[in-house]
Amino acid sequence: MIEVALGIDIGGTNTIFGFINKEGVCLAKGTLKTQKHADIEDYIDELFQIVETKRNALSYQIDIKGIGIGAPNASYYTGTIEDAANLRWKGRIPFVSLVKKRMDVPVYMTNDANAAAMGEKVFGAARNMNNFIVITLGTGLGSGIFVNGDILHGHDGFAGEIGHMIVRKSGRECGCGRKGCLETYVSATGVKRSVYKLLARHIGDSELRDIPYNKLTAKMVAEAANRGDEVAKETFTYTATILGEVLANVVAVTSPEAIFLFGGLTQAGDILFDPVRKSLEENLLSVYKNKIQVLPSGLTENAAVLGTAALVWNSKNNI
Amino acid sequence: MIEVALGIDIGGTNTIFGFINKEGVCLAKGTLKTQKHADIEDYIDELFQIVETKRNALSYQIDIKGIGIGAPNASYYTGTIEDAANLRWKGRIPFVSLVKKRMDVPVYMTNDANAAAMGEKVFGAARNMNNFIVITLGTGLGSGIFVNGDILHGHDGFAGEIGHMIVRKSGRECGCGRKGCLETYVSATGVKRSVYKLLARHIGDSELRDIPYNKLTAKMVAEAANRGDEVAKETFTYTATILGEVLANVVAVTSPEAIFLFGGLTQAGDILFDPVRKSLEENLLSVYKNKIQVLPSGLTENAAVLGTAALVWNSKNNI
Repeated sequence: MIEVALGIDIGGTNTIFGFINKEGVCLAKGTLKTQKHADIEDYIDELFQIVETKRNALSYQIDIKGIGIGAPNASYYTGTIEDAANLRWKGRIPFVSLVKKRMDVPVYMTNDANAAAMGEKVFGAARNMNNFIVITLGTGLGSGIFVNGDILHGHDGFAGEIGHMIVRKSGRECGCGRKGCLETYVSATGVKRSVYKLLARHIGDSELRDIPYNKLTAKMVAEAANRGDEVAKETFTYTATILGEVLANVVAVTSPEAIFLFGGLTQAGDILFDPVRKSLEENLLSVYKNKIQVLPSGLTENAAVLGTAALVWNSKNNI
Repeated sequence: MIEVALGIDIGGTNTIFGFINKEGVCLAKGTLKTQKHADIEDYIDELFQIVETKRNALSYQIDIKGIGIGAPNASYYTGTIEDAANLRWKGRIPFVSLVKKRMDVPVYMTNDANAAAMGEKVFGAARNMNNFIVITLGTGLGSGIFVNGDILHGHDGFAGEIGHMIVRKSGRECGCGRKGCLETYVSATGVKRSVYKLLARHIGDSELRDIPYNKLTAKMVAEAANRGDEVAKETFTYTATILGEVLANVVAVTSPEAIFLFGGLTQAGDILFDPVRKSLEENLLSVYKNKIQVLPSGLTENAAVLGTAALVWNSKNNI
């Protein structure tokens, strides 16, 4: 009998789950299209049918000690998903109690960035750290903050919305209805917007002038930058400079040991990390200078599922 | 035998101490000019002589369970005071170990803003709160942050430097050597600077035009505002609007239940609090709107000493 955590990562497109042992090894995994069912009960029924199928296909028995769930707009305190823009189920979904009806084990749910931070703590590069921040760079910018060895949930479970710190007064329109939020500049979408801003400003050639906005990806911009395209290079410097400025302000609040960058955009590598580090150091109060590491996430394969499983393994019941 | 904590608040001008019982009653207090002794050993010797004199003058016996100290640039982790600009003792002063030589009880030291936050938690208006922020408005702007029921010290003990978040790129010169820090706008000094900025901009009459910069105090500005002086009123609106903007960003990091304003500047009352609340709400992400209270500190008399004594009463040894 092998003890495992069932980690479930609910993304806008795919739901991915895995059986993860205490060492962070994924023994088996499965997927389900998140949008397949309009009814939340149907979705959870099929999800647990696949879980059982995967469990029965193993050549050994497993003991599921708990379930960890990462989902957009998930509240750690209430176990609900509330008005998630990218999911079909509207209103307030009592997700944790629906899951417990199918499998009566401890269930932990939080948002995807907090799960990424927990994964970094339990299985990644933050194993020996008690105060650190994980920034997830995807369509938007998420953040998971560890203080005193625990995730910072705050009063209502919604701490860590660094992507919605306002960084430019009357700046870019944000999906949240306000203007100038960090994620309108620093995210895959932010990079695209910055490319178009710079193409408008400059007159020089750029391979990006041939790509329509709706076809452009941050990956294309990173590749162009690494080929020496000036607009693409300036885009990354611009993006990273703003991120460094804001991180310097966040450091003045929580004083972390390290900041991890996570997600597709980090594949850009040095053209992202170098100017982030430079801008951070330039903007730090002296007491913090040369102390804060900016690092790539230590999680690569199965990162999302590892993070959710880590919620189980880090809980007081399982230490 | 009455159990007390010895609370010591070390300010740039005065050192104040008191014997505080578990209910937050100050049984006796004393003072010493902080600048009297160039030698730190002489200072601590005289301080503890006065403490003994005050103890012996009591008509009952006290048992000092511990000592709490609040000091500028104090590190909670190392028990040292490091390069405090307003103190005579330079370099790294091992304050806690020097105190323990005189009285061998548990000694806790932190900076003055953290002590204020601990006072709010143990004796003030935050007794039932686990996630809140105290902003101390004096010559500068300090902050003490509670998360998960504890002071947020961060990795190196220097968390909570909200006064040094950069809020205006290339803004006002700050004593820290950078530009645009929050405390250059929001503090007693910030208020004076804003008066002069507005006197330069406007042409109308103002009673403040008769006061030289070095004579002007924030209290005079508050009094002028309450008499209807337009420049003074606009100064408070300007100050409070910036504070509200920054607090909205800080809320996106730690998600507190309440924010307390503490210190002389808060005596301005509604002309400060009303525009802070308005600006905060206007700048908050929707998930936080109408949830965050902005309140005056619940500590009035002996606030600084109560806060330092609270360090003792809140410690795990004394609960």
